[in-house]
Amino acid sequence: LISKLPAQGTSIFTIMTHLAEEHNAINLAQGFPGFPCDPHLTDLAAHYIKEGNNQYAPSIGIPVLRKRISQMAELMHGVFYKPETEITITSGATEALYVAITAVVKTGDEVIIMEPAYDAYGPSVRLNGGVPVYVPLDENDFSIDWDRLEGVINEKTTLIIVNTPHNPSGYVWKKDDVDHLAKIISDKPIFVISDEVYEHIVFDKKEHYSLMRNPILRDKTFICSSFGKTLHVTGWKIGYCLAPEKMSKEFRKIHQYIAFSTATPLQYAIAAYLDDDSKYLELSAFYQKKRDIFCEGLKAYTPFKFTPAEGSFFQTVSYRHLSTENDFDLAVRLTKKAKVACIPNTAFYKDKSDLKVLRFCFAKDEAELELAISRLSYAV
Amino acid sequence: LISKLPAQGTSIFTIMTHLAEEHNAINLAQGFPGFPCDPHLTDLAAHYIKEGNNQYAPSIGIPVLRKRISQMAELMHGVFYKPETEITITSGATEALYVAITAVVKTGDEVIIMEPAYDAYGPSVRLNGGVPVYVPLDENDFSIDWDRLEGVINEKTTLIIVNTPHNPSGYVWKKDDVDHLAKIISDKPIFVISDEVYEHIVFDKKEHYSLMRNPILRDKTFICSSFGKTLHVTGWKIGYCLAPEKMSKEFRKIHQYIAFSTATPLQYAIAAYLDDDSKYLELSAFYQKKRDIFCEGLKAYTPFKFTPAEGSFFQTVSYRHLSTENDFDLAVRLTKKAKVACIPNTAFYKDKSDLKVLRFCFAKDEAELELAISRLSYAV
Ligand SMILES: CSCCC(=O)C(=O)O
Ligand SMILES: CSCCC(=O)C(=O)O
Repeated sequence: LISKLPAQGTSIFTIMTHLAEEHNAINLAQGFPGFPCDPHLTDLAAHYIKEGNNQYAPSIGIPVLRKRISQMAELMHGVFYKPETEITITSGATEALYVAITAVVKTGDEVIIMEPAYDAYGPSVRLNGGVPVYVPLDENDFSIDWDRLEGVINEKTTLIIVNTPHNPSGYVWKKDDVDHLAKIISDKPIFVISDEVYEHIVFDKKEHYSLMRNPILRDKTFICSSFGKTLHVTGWKIGYCLAPEKMSKEFRKIHQYIAFSTATPLQYAIAAYLDDDSKYLELSAFYQKKRDIFCEGLKAYTPFKFTPAEGSFFQTVSYRHLSTENDFDLAVRLTKKAKVACIPNTAFYKDKSDLKVLRFCFAKDEAELELAISRLSYAV
Repeated sequence: LISKLPAQGTSIFTIMTHLAEEHNAINLAQGFPGFPCDPHLTDLAAHYIKEGNNQYAPSIGIPVLRKRISQMAELMHGVFYKPETEITITSGATEALYVAITAVVKTGDEVIIMEPAYDAYGPSVRLNGGVPVYVPLDENDFSIDWDRLEGVINEKTTLIIVNTPHNPSGYVWKKDDVDHLAKIISDKPIFVISDEVYEHIVFDKKEHYSLMRNPILRDKTFICSSFGKTLHVTGWKIGYCLAPEKMSKEFRKIHQYIAFSTATPLQYAIAAYLDDDSKYLELSAFYQKKRDIFCEGLKAYTPFKFTPAEGSFFQTVSYRHLSTENDFDLAVRLTKKAKVACIPNTAFYKDKSDLKVLRFCFAKDEAELELAISRLSYAV
């Protein structure tokens, strides 16, 4: 079997999680909450399972959950998506991204990806015969280098992949960024995928300015997200995609052959949970506390350099001024010796240049974060 | 957005299920059980959810479930697959099939599909740039026309998709079929996908002879299946793929970008459920009773012609001797007027020739099957 992805191995998240488990380290590598979700949500899931909602959901997702997602978009961004024709439930944001990429990308198409980037984008483009074109974000503040981005657009460009709040850097797109992107592509046959899985996690009173808020982008963008990060259930794999009707139509055709549908009782549980009130509105404050504790600890007890993340539940730190060790080696050493696992940031770059940056996930209990800081303070 | 699947619309299963719901008809169309699963299984799911198993599972699936699948294969077929390197948990058999197709098929590759065929195979091949080559099964008994199949093999052929027990016909591959396929491809660089989701549903003391039992095919085949049909939980979307190490390696690379992982607590529930004993061993007898009731009813009260299915939970019937109505129209009419929904068999053919055959799903309570027969007896 000739590999379609010869350069790809096991994902860095899997590798570091295994290493963390093997060495009994605190896992600040793979992005998932280290605390349980609301027991009311698990009660609801147990209820819907026992009540017998265990056969196929509609391929596009159960109506009530699509309605909740529509309401959420309207409440957060004042933008309306029709549940019947513009919202589709998927097997996590991962499937949503893969389906959207498959819907757009044909052999030889160029797809612009800003680096650092979540590790799935590039391989997913290549599996569809596309060519990822990487544009670096600013090395210091991870803002978008618009000149470089415009410079690589040509008649082969069919798709730009955006991620805001950004993993791993935490950068949150501003209204200006969104409008700038809209202006650049308004007269071009270019689609956009916006990965917004950290949509409810932004700090310091910043706001998540979804790409859907720009009317030009509303018409060209697949907004992909999931409940995993929002409701602390990354293992449930309930994601969604919002896109204009014509784009959703193609999306749904492909989704029905890739996954068909996703766990019925978990869809019902989430829909019922969101019925009560809008819990996701409090998520930024919840995570800001963790970010602050973690960053204060880093500042007080470690020599790492960093700017506090604007959003997401990741904090990247630089040690360029400290050591020549490459970041994969350092991440492994910290996991084994300090018993704190993290992700080497080179994993988010195609050409694994060694930037000497590490990513820590702070979606953990405060005590665990403090223990991690204390361990790091001895090790670096 | 230029459609990659211009000929494809909403799947026939979705269309007929909607129509059935709209007209309050008995849904013998889409294949799913009309009765609840074992309460012990739902208790286990509720338990694992409340216990807090709600974060990402390993991308390849939890170890204990992979072990159970390995034991199941050994018990049923005497063939050993290594849980660590040869078994992967997927988002239902649908994702397993899509990933396996993606692993093998490159632009221009030809893929042999026997018709009638499950509706996802062809579009999934085309989404990967492949060319489906359809070979008809025998019109009367749905056996394999080996001369025709051998006749279409050429140097572009990279994959053959097998489905046993077969949907929609119920045909079960015999040892001779399996060995014949092995002989044909033994010296060729051709892979096989075997969709065996009805692996535990075979009648009249026949046996499901999995392709894994032939050593040549063991080395070339992605065996795809799922717990949906076996444990009466089609809505849980826990599937799996067994394949030799090198093939599994590519499969896993692709799976991590398409779905990453699948619902953690439901994986634990199934693994624990299978721990007690081997419930799937009784599934054939359970479904044989339903098939017999349904077929006796068809024979006594309707003019349909049919041969009882050898496996799966579908029964196809012909009305060629009765009417010139095409089967899509008849299926719609029966749904609206007789209040019994079924699938027109032309949906399983690329060139929708009108074969005047309907498919009924008999995975329903006995009373519902009897009511369906009574309604059909008045309508046809
Ligand atoms: C799908 S595993 C990766 C989880 C994640 O989003 C991350 O760690 O970046
Ligand atoms: C995934 S919906 C189709 C269910 C099924 O296997 C069938 O009805 O053939």
